Amino acid sequence: MTEQHHFTIVTHGRGAVDITARVAALVARAAPRAGLVHLFVRHTSCGLVITENADPDVRRDLETLFARWAPDGDPAYRHDTEGDDDMAAHARSLLTGVSLAVPFAAGRLLLGTWQGIYLYEHRTGSHEREIVVTLAG
Amino acid sequence: MTEQHHFTIVTHGRGAVDITARVAALVARAAPRAGLVHLFVRHTSCGLVITENADPDVRRDLETLFARWAPDGDPAYRHDTEGDDDMAAHARSLLTGVSLAVPFAAGRLLLGTWQGIYLYEHRTGSHEREIVVTLAG
Amino acid sequence: MTEQHHFTIVTHGRGAVDITARVAALVARAAPRAGLVHLFVRHTSCGLVITENADPDVRRDLETLFARWAPDGDPAYRHDTEGDDDMAAHARSLLTGVSLAVPFAAGRLLLGTWQGIYLYEHRTGSHEREIVVTLAG
Repeated sequence: MTEQHHFTIVTHGRGAVDITARVAALVARAAPRAGLVHLFVRHTSCGLVITENADPDVRRDLETLFARWAPDGDPAYRHDTEGDDDMAAHARSLLTGVSLAVPFAAGRLLLGTWQGIYLYEHRTGSHEREIVVTLAG
Repeated sequence: MTEQHHFTIVTHGRGAVDITARVAALVARAAPRAGLVHLFVRHTSCGLVITENADPDVRRDLETLFARWAPDGDPAYRHDTEGDDDMAAHARSLLTGVSLAVPFAAGRLLLGTWQGIYLYEHRTGSHEREIVVTLAG
Repeated sequence: MTEQHHFTIVTHGRGAVDITARVAALVARAAPRAGLVHLFVRHTSCGLVITENADPDVRRDLETLFARWAPDGDPAYRHDTEGDDDMAAHARSLLTGVSLAVPFAAGRLLLGTWQGIYLYEHRTGSHEREIVVTLAG
């Protein structure tokens, strides 16, 4: 048995947007009581990650590292149609991935205590990001 | 309900091979009409990614970054049995991953407009790569 | 049809712990005979990867690269509550991911010959790591 939902997140520049509560609410109301919830973001310049949910400095430090792994406006890039953050965002999206699955049981996500689910915006501007949620149980 | 298929891609050196049409065709013919299509590549020196499908410069720039993240023939590597690109390919494979799931509905992949599904070859030579497709709906 | 199991691995510092046999045993006894086995580790400072299972030098070289990608005690980090390896471990966890799915059929994992499933410990100390296994078929 699978069930599908869509929702949209408006981002305001780079960084991690906590979507845990949103996903938990869909899981709580879902027909399957146990199984997997799969998230998929329909873009190539943002990503989905699970990371530490307690200290915002973790996400700040991730940003520091992303800027090393895929710097904005690198002179070696050929693709810069949408500006200095364009290619950097595609590369960061490859590193974070756009597809993620989390187990659930008894209508609750089986996340660890310190785990949050985040939409990671890799562009510097504001964007509308569409997420497809598939529940399989 | 799950359904499994296998297919093989012959690669010709490093880079991204678009397998979107191949996956879409399996989804179109599948018994489940909605759910998840999971792809798994049975090797440790290539990967599966979703990335931008319009401008080939994006894939060229990804290659530029991969060469920084995991350079060929790095003097620090101990593993070089199959040549200078051997360890670099394993490291790139870890970064891209070998497992990927995409939602579908009404027999169509729910990819975003600019998303393509790619087998990313990380070796410099030609290789036969086996992909397992599992459809769950 | 889905089925869930939990198991715990005690790690002893950084590195890859082979959990292939453990997962294969669950798959062999599972009610579904074909489908996907999904693994999820409930922590933000370790990860799950598929990598080469033959030459231990591959995992040693991965460690060399991880130390470049996310060095311990980097002066730019703000998050260091649990020591020099704290932020580095969160960053490495983001690169490896905490969620992984592998297809199976006839009660056997469809891994390639050289693929092993590893829990990758990113902290330098000893930790108890809880893994949730969901079988969908």
